[in-house]
Amino acid sequence: MDRDPILLTPGPLTTTLRTKLAMLKDWGSWDTDFIAVTASVRQRLLDIVHGADSHVLVPLQGSGTFSVEAAVATVVPRDGHVLVMDNGAYCKRAARLTQLMGRRATVVPQAEEEPVSAGEMEKRLLADPSITHVVLIHCETGTGVLNPLPEMAAVCQRLGKGLIVDAMSSFGALPIDAREVRFDALVAASGKCLEGVPGMGFVFLRKAILDGCAGNSQSLAMDLHDQHVYMEKTGQWRFTPPTHVLVALSEAITQFEEEGGRVARLARYTDNCRVLVDGMAALGFRPLLRPEVQAPIIVTFHAPAHPAYEFRRFYEAAKARGFILYPGKLTQVETFRVGCIGAIGANEMRQAVAAVADSLAEMGIPDGRPAG
Amino acid sequence: MDRDPILLTPGPLTTTLRTKLAMLKDWGSWDTDFIAVTASVRQRLLDIVHGADSHVLVPLQGSGTFSVEAAVATVVPRDGHVLVMDNGAYCKRAARLTQLMGRRATVVPQAEEEPVSAGEMEKRLLADPSITHVVLIHCETGTGVLNPLPEMAAVCQRLGKGLIVDAMSSFGALPIDAREVRFDALVAASGKCLEGVPGMGFVFLRKAILDGCAGNSQSLAMDLHDQHVYMEKTGQWRFTPPTHVLVALSEAITQFEEEGGRVARLARYTDNCRVLVDGMAALGFRPLLRPEVQAPIIVTFHAPAHPAYEFRRFYEAAKARGFILYPGKLTQVETFRVGCIGAIGANEMRQAVAAVADSLAEMGIPDGRPAG
Repeated sequence: MDRDPILLTPGPLTTTLRTKLAMLKDWGSWDTDFIAVTASVRQRLLDIVHGADSHVLVPLQGSGTFSVEAAVATVVPRDGHVLVMDNGAYCKRAARLTQLMGRRATVVPQAEEEPVSAGEMEKRLLADPSITHVVLIHCETGTGVLNPLPEMAAVCQRLGKGLIVDAMSSFGALPIDAREVRFDALVAASGKCLEGVPGMGFVFLRKAILDGCAGNSQSLAMDLHDQHVYMEKTGQWRFTPPTHVLVALSEAITQFEEEGGRVARLARYTDNCRVLVDGMAALGFRPLLRPEVQAPIIVTFHAPAHPAYEFRRFYEAAKARGFILYPGKLTQVETFRVGCIGAIGANEMRQAVAAVADSLAEMGIPDGRPAG
Repeated sequence: MDRDPILLTPGPLTTTLRTKLAMLKDWGSWDTDFIAVTASVRQRLLDIVHGADSHVLVPLQGSGTFSVEAAVATVVPRDGHVLVMDNGAYCKRAARLTQLMGRRATVVPQAEEEPVSAGEMEKRLLADPSITHVVLIHCETGTGVLNPLPEMAAVCQRLGKGLIVDAMSSFGALPIDAREVRFDALVAASGKCLEGVPGMGFVFLRKAILDGCAGNSQSLAMDLHDQHVYMEKTGQWRFTPPTHVLVALSEAITQFEEEGGRVARLARYTDNCRVLVDGMAALGFRPLLRPEVQAPIIVTFHAPAHPAYEFRRFYEAAKARGFILYPGKLTQVETFRVGCIGAIGANEMRQAVAAVADSLAEMGIPDGRPAG
């Protein structure tokens, strides 16, 4: 019973053995071999969004949230004013870190089960011309809802507002094309749809705004402009890089390319999501979101109405069967979440559904039907 | 010729295969198994400094510098005033990040080849009562000099000043006992003397000051108080942890304990340093520092005076022989550095000296004698 459980979580997620094996070597961070890995990762990440002409790629130590904070700290001037159309937990987090660093932020509460409306955002921008930037969560992992990046980016461009995109859980799977969608900063991380291990984030910064970012950040560690300038000059990271995490990401990107890139990855995740949702529906479970707004990244399900249901027991039962589920993140409704991403396919999703069915049976719950 | 080079660098450094093998598994960050690893690492780190009664241990994503910045941001109030007795590159970095975040910092330049004087520091503290905190680099990796932590801590305690210690390259090897030396915060990282892989830091915070730290940090990601409160409540990290890096650190700590803990590790590094310095001296090389102030962590050598010497060529020649050296970090004198830490012993140090001898011969340099 030593098989590792499959992580149905939105990062850390299940990675291939090949990715993990890349970590069995130590690298000198100053050495040319490691500098070459950094350069190659930066170039290949730019290629994924067709951003080589318009953007630079700045990697950063830490979790994805560190990179979100760094993007806001670097891109938004100290007297800037950020708008967050808030439809979930990661929107709230982005607003909080913006306010904490002393930047003004206006937060507009939205329904969590629906995408943000670009039209509604436009009204807000027109009503308050002091707003300089919009922060947008592409796929709100709190629920799994997909926000309309192209439409929102078009509004920002037309009105001359900066746009910072948290694409943490969408980058590498959902379409993002820097030639068609204008963003000042776009943030993602190693341990999400690229299927690397967690430990670093990265930010695409638009070349046209780069010089203007100097001196914005009050944090040394999170100053992406400084990190960029140093890296361009030396090829090195300013401070000790997570060497093993970076080489694992490099190996993961190679497999991403071999699989057929973003289109193939999205196709696999879409298939994973369909198998999951169909299988769970057959057990009576109902997803929180309408199918049209559901990104194939993570699915929020209503908890079963049956009185014997308790998330902790359900989680342990599924874990005993080899699958790690994810708790819900909503305050109003009881839910749980199941990720569709990672080095897994339709087989694993079918087995996951079977494990859920078994777990319900063990708990004496006839089906997954929610209340109401 | 596929043997991995040995890293004679102050982190990332050479780790054991056993440490790296711990990374061949994916972990759910929310799962109880991972929560147990986090708890165990925190406890065992506290044990190393005998700090369980007096301190808490807060891990943080990112490089060691992230944790230094987080310690200052969390411990020093916004109207605080920091004193840095500056005898090296890491002192300057600590002062810079303090000023950047808007805290007042007074920097007193000191000779780089000598330890900071506790008496001189005391004079400065008495002359300016507005100073609230001292930031001290225990082992200045810029040169390798050891600063007098116990003496400086005693002065800070007597005068009622807070003390933040950057023990990045000393923790786990040089003696630090929280029962005898009072510090408000002490910072180290995974990829140094504990011989883990890089990707996370950690900070010991004194329990007595913990409550007073709430709300100090203007950075969400670097708020160690917030990280601590959340971790105490849930056992989890606030944001995605570097799961593979943490389990590698846990495995590295187990080997540290098996080796005989801090005392045994210091003995091995001291032996490494002696073999290195003696071997290099036989080749004519001269260390920058007097032996009495040289920490057995990293040794700075004067560059050879011979006109054929060029660091880049010397580095490549040593690398071709399997050893990664480290550049100097002084502006006035030409130097290079050689680390004594990592999963290496006297054999590797002897081989390194032999590789240096070969490299000199290849470059047509008769010996390592410096100018003057």
